[in-house]
Amino acid sequence: MKKLINKPEDFVRETMEGIIAAYGDKVRLLDNDYRILLSSYGAREGKVGIVTAGGSGHLPVFLGYVGQGLLDGCTVGNVFASPAASKMADMIRACDRGSGVLVLFGNYGGDKMNFELACETVELEDDIKTKMVLVKDDVASAPKEEAQRRRGVAGMVYAFKVAGAKAENGGSLEEVAEAAQHALDNIRTMGAALSSCTVPQVGEPTFSIAEDEIEIGMGIHGEPGLEVRKMMTADEVAETLLGKIMADMPLEAGDEVSVMVNGLGATPLEEQLILYRRVHQLLKERGISIYMPHIGEYATSMEMAGVSLTVMKLDGELKGLLGQVAKSPFYTNYNK
Amino acid sequence: MKKLINKPEDFVRETMEGIIAAYGDKVRLLDNDYRILLSSYGAREGKVGIVTAGGSGHLPVFLGYVGQGLLDGCTVGNVFASPAASKMADMIRACDRGSGVLVLFGNYGGDKMNFELACETVELEDDIKTKMVLVKDDVASAPKEEAQRRRGVAGMVYAFKVAGAKAENGGSLEEVAEAAQHALDNIRTMGAALSSCTVPQVGEPTFSIAEDEIEIGMGIHGEPGLEVRKMMTADEVAETLLGKIMADMPLEAGDEVSVMVNGLGATPLEEQLILYRRVHQLLKERGISIYMPHIGEYATSMEMAGVSLTVMKLDGELKGLLGQVAKSPFYTNYNK
Repeated sequence: MKKLINKPEDFVRETMEGIIAAYGDKVRLLDNDYRILLSSYGAREGKVGIVTAGGSGHLPVFLGYVGQGLLDGCTVGNVFASPAASKMADMIRACDRGSGVLVLFGNYGGDKMNFELACETVELEDDIKTKMVLVKDDVASAPKEEAQRRRGVAGMVYAFKVAGAKAENGGSLEEVAEAAQHALDNIRTMGAALSSCTVPQVGEPTFSIAEDEIEIGMGIHGEPGLEVRKMMTADEVAETLLGKIMADMPLEAGDEVSVMVNGLGATPLEEQLILYRRVHQLLKERGISIYMPHIGEYATSMEMAGVSLTVMKLDGELKGLLGQVAKSPFYTNYNK
Repeated sequence: MKKLINKPEDFVRETMEGIIAAYGDKVRLLDNDYRILLSSYGAREGKVGIVTAGGSGHLPVFLGYVGQGLLDGCTVGNVFASPAASKMADMIRACDRGSGVLVLFGNYGGDKMNFELACETVELEDDIKTKMVLVKDDVASAPKEEAQRRRGVAGMVYAFKVAGAKAENGGSLEEVAEAAQHALDNIRTMGAALSSCTVPQVGEPTFSIAEDEIEIGMGIHGEPGLEVRKMMTADEVAETLLGKIMADMPLEAGDEVSVMVNGLGATPLEEQLILYRRVHQLLKERGISIYMPHIGEYATSMEMAGVSLTVMKLDGELKGLLGQVAKSPFYTNYNK
């Protein structure tokens, strides 16, 4: 697998250098640390901070959501690896405006362990209040009875958006955490992969899928999915992913949802739109309407081919928060 | 090559169905024709129309730039094939508000022949004034002495943006055409490909590049480039592309430019940022500053891996027009 990189060990730092070179008027490093990105968009005095963290290799997740009405800070680790607890603690300190910090991230062991330690540290040393909300939207990663084990994938973008808007509106730490949790209770994601990604320092594809096969439910680091199938049409993939989601989170006529069709890296926008088209048909047939669809690359696995489908079931509060203005160098809520 | 599609012959229609399903409040079909997209954003009475056309398979080019401060209409053909002249004529008629229509498109034989016929037709039959401006930004596609033969690639996005802003500002057809041409006189693009794309109805990659090779100057349909080289680092690619551009369009200390690093389809955003970082360093060393960089997928070749680099040399007028608000479902000028 060819990559447009320099030394593999410089991949993360040079990515961050690119972000700062391009968008240094909107985001900045914390104390010249090339693993911690903070928002330079103006924020209201006393606004609750929102931060995340995770491994690199998923842009625009995570760094791309540092902005206005989104995240205040993000720290990243090596590709697919958690950052250190000490960096998380530094970031939390930098993002506290006296009202506490929501720590909102995907349910992965390393991230969870490190964030728990970081939260304890800032509470003890700095008297900073934190709340932790874990993203567990990947339906394929555990059955419904064990939903607590599920991994966090593209649905986290909706959670960032909702929590970010709630914080902008003056919500307290408890209220912002509740809004994020409420969004996540109504978010489900399911993906399908057509090819592997390659971790730069490994240099070989993480896994292989035969030329005539597709893996349903694969994780964004190449975690095994539910099943390997013979290659399907876009319509069949849409039906399969939506079917799994609706089996887990029933929807009925009159419901309103937002739908994200997320390209995992190498899948053309044309194909994402073809798949979205079928999801739209299926929901319409059931009397379910779609608000503010998101189609594009929101959470990737570098050059992996494939897509994920995320559905967020809306109520008045979630719709209002989703619709609010938000912007970062990588995300604009253009619908407003 | 696996694709998330249904029948290959439905690829273009189903892509358009996806666009309408997702963004039917912002763009619409002309007379239910799934090859002609019009803007539904409000436009001032008497605004000069701007249209383009070309083959499918390059999203967000071309359809993605139908919006506000951008294009009024776009018609697309099959993958990598020109649409018919009759559809171009229908679109021009729909986009004329009495002040004429700028026809702004890439320099490809079929598109040119058909647009010439369409412009003659609407002038004869409907008395609609048109001006034609061709995008010829691909430095690799012909030497400087034969610049008239050059093909149009990602630089057309800057031309859409500049012309769209000029038309919003009340420019006449002549003024809008002049602004587009002035932008194009100051735009150069150069690309490099790491892998091929696959045309759906063909089903096999258009060309092949060895696993340890990169093709410098390849066209966005797989037209042969200047040379095949052993795989290079991101820094070497940046230096090579920028070197070719600056040999063709000299820049000097004090100049200001906008830079587009465009992913051709499968290249991760991380790699685009790493490459941008080096372009930024090289320009900075020469005393050249960058305004409003564009990094992402702006003009693709479906699942092709690779990038293109576009430089637009700015003056006061171009900078002002570039900086104006513009939005479409696929493009937002977020810097404002």
